Amino acid sequence: QVEVYGVLDLAVTSDSDAGKRVTKVDSGQQTASRLGIKGSEDLGSGLRAIFDVESQIEADTGQPSFAGRPFGSQSWVGLSGPFGAVRAGRMFTPYFGAIATNDPFDAKGPGESTRVFYDSGVRMDNTVKYSLPPTLGGVYGDLAYGAGEAAGNSQANRQLSGDIGYTAGPLNVVLAWHSANDALGMKLARSHLLGGSYDFGRIKGWLVLARSRNDSTLDTRDTLFGLSVPVGRHLIAADYVHKSDFANRDADATQLALAYYHTLSRRTNLYLIGSQLSNDGAASYQVTLPGGTRRVIAAGMRHQF
Amino acid sequence: QVEVYGVLDLAVTSDSDAGKRVTKVDSGQQTASRLGIKGSEDLGSGLRAIFDVESQIEADTGQPSFAGRPFGSQSWVGLSGPFGAVRAGRMFTPYFGAIATNDPFDAKGPGESTRVFYDSGVRMDNTVKYSLPPTLGGVYGDLAYGAGEAAGNSQANRQLSGDIGYTAGPLNVVLAWHSANDALGMKLARSHLLGGSYDFGRIKGWLVLARSRNDSTLDTRDTLFGLSVPVGRHLIAADYVHKSDFANRDADATQLALAYYHTLSRRTNLYLIGSQLSNDGAASYQVTLPGGTRRVIAAGMRHQF
Amino acid sequence: QVEVYGVLDLAVTSDSDAGKRVTKVDSGQQTASRLGIKGSEDLGSGLRAIFDVESQIEADTGQPSFAGRPFGSQSWVGLSGPFGAVRAGRMFTPYFGAIATNDPFDAKGPGESTRVFYDSGVRMDNTVKYSLPPTLGGVYGDLAYGAGEAAGNSQANRQLSGDIGYTAGPLNVVLAWHSANDALGMKLARSHLLGGSYDFGRIKGWLVLARSRNDSTLDTRDTLFGLSVPVGRHLIAADYVHKSDFANRDADATQLALAYYHTLSRRTNLYLIGSQLSNDGAASYQVTLPGGTRRVIAAGMRHQF
Repeated sequence: QVEVYGVLDLAVTSDSDAGKRVTKVDSGQQTASRLGIKGSEDLGSGLRAIFDVESQIEADTGQPSFAGRPFGSQSWVGLSGPFGAVRAGRMFTPYFGAIATNDPFDAKGPGESTRVFYDSGVRMDNTVKYSLPPTLGGVYGDLAYGAGEAAGNSQANRQLSGDIGYTAGPLNVVLAWHSANDALGMKLARSHLLGGSYDFGRIKGWLVLARSRNDSTLDTRDTLFGLSVPVGRHLIAADYVHKSDFANRDADATQLALAYYHTLSRRTNLYLIGSQLSNDGAASYQVTLPGGTRRVIAAGMRHQF
Repeated sequence: QVEVYGVLDLAVTSDSDAGKRVTKVDSGQQTASRLGIKGSEDLGSGLRAIFDVESQIEADTGQPSFAGRPFGSQSWVGLSGPFGAVRAGRMFTPYFGAIATNDPFDAKGPGESTRVFYDSGVRMDNTVKYSLPPTLGGVYGDLAYGAGEAAGNSQANRQLSGDIGYTAGPLNVVLAWHSANDALGMKLARSHLLGGSYDFGRIKGWLVLARSRNDSTLDTRDTLFGLSVPVGRHLIAADYVHKSDFANRDADATQLALAYYHTLSRRTNLYLIGSQLSNDGAASYQVTLPGGTRRVIAAGMRHQF
Repeated sequence: QVEVYGVLDLAVTSDSDAGKRVTKVDSGQQTASRLGIKGSEDLGSGLRAIFDVESQIEADTGQPSFAGRPFGSQSWVGLSGPFGAVRAGRMFTPYFGAIATNDPFDAKGPGESTRVFYDSGVRMDNTVKYSLPPTLGGVYGDLAYGAGEAAGNSQANRQLSGDIGYTAGPLNVVLAWHSANDALGMKLARSHLLGGSYDFGRIKGWLVLARSRNDSTLDTRDTLFGLSVPVGRHLIAADYVHKSDFANRDADATQLALAYYHTLSRRTNLYLIGSQLSNDGAASYQVTLPGGTRRVIAAGMRHQF
């Protein structure tokens, strides 16, 4: 079967940076606006052909989120079966997947951890990915290789990303890593991450601990503590995100975020999300000037179809 | 429910400008070619989630009508209910809506009034729009605010557009206005419009009177008189469009258009549309050289799905 | 009815050029990856409205195959009936259609003849095409005119392309021609082609003979011999493609290709395709340096929906 699906998420935001406040209408403050077509075909013997082609949209202007790439969100085809699944194409990195799964803000909007975290680029081109089957008693995992496609240098621009996790009842825990090379084939970044969440019933706790390094300019530790509290049609979420930079002096950053979601239906909700991102004197995450503070409040609506 | 819809409209045109005639194959001579996905969801209590994402296509070449913006026609999400509807995203300006509704050519193709009219840019980015509910005994109206999104200057590039109308039986009448600022926050244009149509049965009459001004370079009056005559599967339409320029000497322009539509089904028709646009000596609407005359004849087919 | 359809085709390729081998993930090594919407409407009296809008995708990166043209694969509307069919828009040239139909690799991927053949540009903008009806006892044919759209010079950039063929049981044979002018209205290329295939049951044979010329720099002969052998779920295909250049010395090229297809379902298959393209000293088809040899092996999966 083939399914047309999508998300339209638009918000009015109040955004201040370098002492200047601006009111905007922004797309994707809870979830990226998108259109996609996905499907699967039963091939017998437990084998299925699977695919997904997805366009991410800045719905406030009608532009694709990736300039010149209308299908830049995902485009892949693969086979799944008792052995797991193999996919080829453009897709999310397992490393980013591990961040998003353990971030109460799903790594999107004013509260997303990846505004300060090393995010591995979020997506990989020219990728082949193997995923474990969902039959291993809660153990899951992925291994992805992104070809650099540089003639005569198989190390240039190549990426390797993986995760291995365990989920059981209220618990989810995952270990992820990402290795990216630069255009010369040297280390661009090596990242490791431990993520997890635990659903206590009335409250859910979230945690991400990550470290990214290369041989010279990069040595950072990323930390996220989060919690979310569902009450009927209401959901409160909050997190604390911190980057410690060991390669550069006075270059840490801290983000605090708080959100309220009001459920209108299984597919539709309203939201109010605010965050404050504070940079140390030599850091400039999400700000124009080093040491700046960015404050964003977004009031919006997300509709999924 | 979610609906995939669209229009494919292609014509052979004969187009003369500056004494040179060229034969072309052109898209959207009756209605813009497009693909869209729209839908709504019942949220209970009369509330609905509504959305539309639309791509306008130059179907003669496969290019998007808005370069680099595959979803540049419309992309918005909103809520409708007893109170009316609120939408956020990219959408048509109420001012353009009032032109199109009262133009027998639906503001498109060789006869479109907006080839000489001030058209308010047709669409607005970063917009929030409120619309009256359809339960007010024929009164309708919209108010749209397009954020300029300039840091530290909330007046820069902002737009405000609205309309208020009344429809009853054969009558439709609407008042619309549009206020657009430039990048410095100064008046780019202030426009007011009175539009209407009356269906006499055998003949329908159309009228638009508009005025656009700013503090210096812009002071024009736009006028449209139109009529349309349906006879079974046939429809004849004609209009006279005139621009009077009070800010520039010898800069008026006049367009005459005539069309024949042949209905093949509720969704499909053939058409033959011709127009002549004459510029005064200092005007250059739709022509290469000031004072030129543009003549276009289009023979085409429109299919809606 | 309206139909959303598509192809996702991705492969791991090993590609060597100028002595450098590179491993890549590539899209469309058997069939171009794409998304499309097509449909038809019964208008009575045997008349139908028909349309197709198609996006070709490089699924390894999510980019459109035609930069800036998300609907660059096809976009047309037309009428079909007892008289045949008339289409307007962007579409494949009849000349390319005749190549693709008689190439065991469907003119795509490492074995495609058009890596060395003159291919007429594959698609035409601004085109009106007439096709014979499918009721002529096996005779088929198309005539397409692509307007150059240059003011004052109706010969500039115009294209004319046609084919006339006959199919009966195991036999298909087609004659095609293409005439393309340059921006000055001079001969860019005049091409003629004889193509055919015959299905002997256990083996199918394929043939294309073509010649392209202009008044000065172009005079080439293109030749393809192919065969394909289906055995249950398996299909073997091979071809020999040769370009003889009579306008330039030492500028011939030869391509040999071999493929194995493994059918998983009517819509899904795996494939392994390899080709070697050898250039004479002054030729540089698909290579960086004149006289080079290009070797490509692609192992992939194609899913149609």
